Amino acid sequence: MKSHPLPKEENALASKQIYSRAVEVLTGGVSRNTIFRKPHPFYVASASGSYIKDIEGTERLDFANNMASLIHGHSHPAIIKAVTEQLHKGSAYTMGTEVEVLYAELLNKRTPGFEKIRFMNSGTEAVMTMIKASRVFTGKYKIAKAEGAYHGTYDYAEISQTANPSNWGDIDKPNAVEVVQNTPKGILDDMVIFPFNDIERTINILDQQAGKIACVLIDPVPHRIGLFPATNEYIEAIYKWTRKNNALLVFDEVVSYRVNYAGAQHSYSVKPDLTALGKIIGGGFPIGAIAGTSEIMTVLDPRGTFLKHPHSGTFSANPVSTTAGKVAMELFDEEAVLKLNAFAMKARKQIEEVIKIADVPACITGAGSMFKIHLQENAPNTYRDAYQDKNTKAIVDELLDYLFLEKDIIMINTLACMFSTTLTQSNVDRLSEALLQGLKLVKPKLDQLVK
Amino acid sequence: MKSHPLPKEENALASKQIYSRAVEVLTGGVSRNTIFRKPHPFYVASASGSYIKDIEGTERLDFANNMASLIHGHSHPAIIKAVTEQLHKGSAYTMGTEVEVLYAELLNKRTPGFEKIRFMNSGTEAVMTMIKASRVFTGKYKIAKAEGAYHGTYDYAEISQTANPSNWGDIDKPNAVEVVQNTPKGILDDMVIFPFNDIERTINILDQQAGKIACVLIDPVPHRIGLFPATNEYIEAIYKWTRKNNALLVFDEVVSYRVNYAGAQHSYSVKPDLTALGKIIGGGFPIGAIAGTSEIMTVLDPRGTFLKHPHSGTFSANPVSTTAGKVAMELFDEEAVLKLNAFAMKARKQIEEVIKIADVPACITGAGSMFKIHLQENAPNTYRDAYQDKNTKAIVDELLDYLFLEKDIIMINTLACMFSTTLTQSNVDRLSEALLQGLKLVKPKLDQLVK
Repeated sequence: MKSHPLPKEENALASKQIYSRAVEVLTGGVSRNTIFRKPHPFYVASASGSYIKDIEGTERLDFANNMASLIHGHSHPAIIKAVTEQLHKGSAYTMGTEVEVLYAELLNKRTPGFEKIRFMNSGTEAVMTMIKASRVFTGKYKIAKAEGAYHGTYDYAEISQTANPSNWGDIDKPNAVEVVQNTPKGILDDMVIFPFNDIERTINILDQQAGKIACVLIDPVPHRIGLFPATNEYIEAIYKWTRKNNALLVFDEVVSYRVNYAGAQHSYSVKPDLTALGKIIGGGFPIGAIAGTSEIMTVLDPRGTFLKHPHSGTFSANPVSTTAGKVAMELFDEEAVLKLNAFAMKARKQIEEVIKIADVPACITGAGSMFKIHLQENAPNTYRDAYQDKNTKAIVDELLDYLFLEKDIIMINTLACMFSTTLTQSNVDRLSEALLQGLKLVKPKLDQLVK
Repeated sequence: MKSHPLPKEENALASKQIYSRAVEVLTGGVSRNTIFRKPHPFYVASASGSYIKDIEGTERLDFANNMASLIHGHSHPAIIKAVTEQLHKGSAYTMGTEVEVLYAELLNKRTPGFEKIRFMNSGTEAVMTMIKASRVFTGKYKIAKAEGAYHGTYDYAEISQTANPSNWGDIDKPNAVEVVQNTPKGILDDMVIFPFNDIERTINILDQQAGKIACVLIDPVPHRIGLFPATNEYIEAIYKWTRKNNALLVFDEVVSYRVNYAGAQHSYSVKPDLTALGKIIGGGFPIGAIAGTSEIMTVLDPRGTFLKHPHSGTFSANPVSTTAGKVAMELFDEEAVLKLNAFAMKARKQIEEVIKIADVPACITGAGSMFKIHLQENAPNTYRDAYQDKNTKAIVDELLDYLFLEKDIIMINTLACMFSTTLTQSNVDRLSEALLQGLKLVKPKLDQLVK
């Protein structure tokens, strides 16, 4: 399966050389910490479907799909065609485009709770706008979120994302832990942190702040917590709490929207008031969006005499991102979603078998077209369950390196896979085989850990 | 000059119809308030160079260039070519690209103060990251900014952007005024608001918070304040204050970077510690960036064992935006900048003549390739000087509507022009002629105002 056209030693030169220039001009040589790897990142020459070729000529099988943002893999012909046509008509104007309206219709029709939508440029912008809109609508300040959940880089949204045993505090009342050093105290004070998927503790914690909470922010399948879905009972309990306490239930579906045709929210008996979107809805181009009930979304309406929540953005709803997104989501229709989910579930079962054969303390969680391998015996139920200590993280890194460097397979650096529609059974077989060898390789260290 | 292929009445139908669908799915029918206009926005069919054709077939001459983001107008062939090539190699990956390094080299070489740079997705993200980095580096919380200055939609950055006589308070100590309703008190408390370009008051205000200020945020040519440059004395005074008080001087050059080859900062004897970029550096595609000294930018470095400021972004430094940006900025070389600035200055003089001939109380301000018409006798020196009351704003809107609907000319809704390299003298003559007629039209109302 190896495709290195040059001997290994020489291979590494080009990317190493570029990186040596990169560190001179980019902080740490990167613009995204996600692409950073020791001793240096690899640089892409081209990508197509499920494969990325680096400048050394090594072609890797991609299960990361740019952090879950490419539902149809790389360079999908229909997206290239539509975007190329759009390029010749311009990429951004201070005027409207028909495609933003058609795309809004498509997404709103897709998800019953989406009455109105607004596009922006990233998931970070979407979550920020959703939080601000929640404050406007409820007249309250505090934001409740799950410990460990990633919601982009808006300060409020990122609190406690990287909490660890040294600072996370009592599980009955988790600390609000800064992610960026010297986060203003006012931000920490306005955050309410709860343990994901733990009804009793979550409700207790929310109750202590009743009357002050603008919204409860939930990613229903939080990747950084452990990529397992919230139970229906949990979402229902929070929903009921928000109804009783004049707060909003808002979902971050930037990652999880792919889980069902209508988003992960389709799995629950109650619906969020607002939803943040991003990733796959851009078809490979920068995008974000918030959607929700007309009543709440009205806070953003520019038609009134007094504008409660002014909001703009130079590239918001630009016709390149909306065109690419519309094509991608049209192709990712109900049938495609079901097919991809079934395929990913089959792959997940296959990897469960691999874990058994390798006889390692590991398990797998996931939902829809996403799954994640945990180097622990039992599936985690909380962020603290799923938290990896330094030693486990070192084994994860070793496994990822083995897959990337020896097996030419790209997984997300959390040992997660985000499937695209271009993946085939033989791709999954290759992944299984590589994982089997990789898990066998790290087995001695893993067994040591468990002791 | 009119190019309406259908009678006016019929013309309006298509955009009106799309908008009637838009309001059903998008809040207020738009994703950006900037494109909103009463009774409805117009929708673009295609754009090329300095012209945008709407779906009714009306071709308009564009002086807005998507809110100053298109330095080479629409659909520039070199950008289309480079982006099309990139599309076939993919639009985003969880790996590095050579173009992000080459583009970082280009920008850092261009501006002496840029030792390290990091790309992100929007000006809003850039300013947010710059503020967070300033807090990390200085260990302080408070952010000082100029009343009226626009810096994107991060809550801290937007405070007092829309301050008005009813809430702005004493000029010696302007209030921190929320833009979005129910902004947390903690945010307002952490803001220090000063009057732009007023040395004595600004230093006095900063002095009152000495020891608590992380950064002084300045757009050296703030569009929303009145599009006139800060004096060298002003920037020097603030710079000296920041040196004495362990604070950073940070520039928002998202708009103003076009003013010189090395940015508006090139006009000053002192340099900012950090700079936020966006708009033109994306070549028409979503982008943002922060750049500054290696020492400060190190807070974002992912290589250390303890990461002070974790930061990522799914589409940050995506190769479409960096490719387009690199081509655009290569074309906007030193000669092109000088040529465009000289051309815009000539146009500005021409419009000054128009104002004289029209005999209206109006003036013009600007810098580099940007200028703005003010419907007041004397050029403003502060935000409060430039502030338009309701009556003046109504006349501005009437003038903009006349230009847009009757003369097929697009200006920014502040009566500003952001030149692109595709504009010609005959385009400027057409603008002058239209403005002459427009100003004559509103003269009776303007004269009435002055009385």
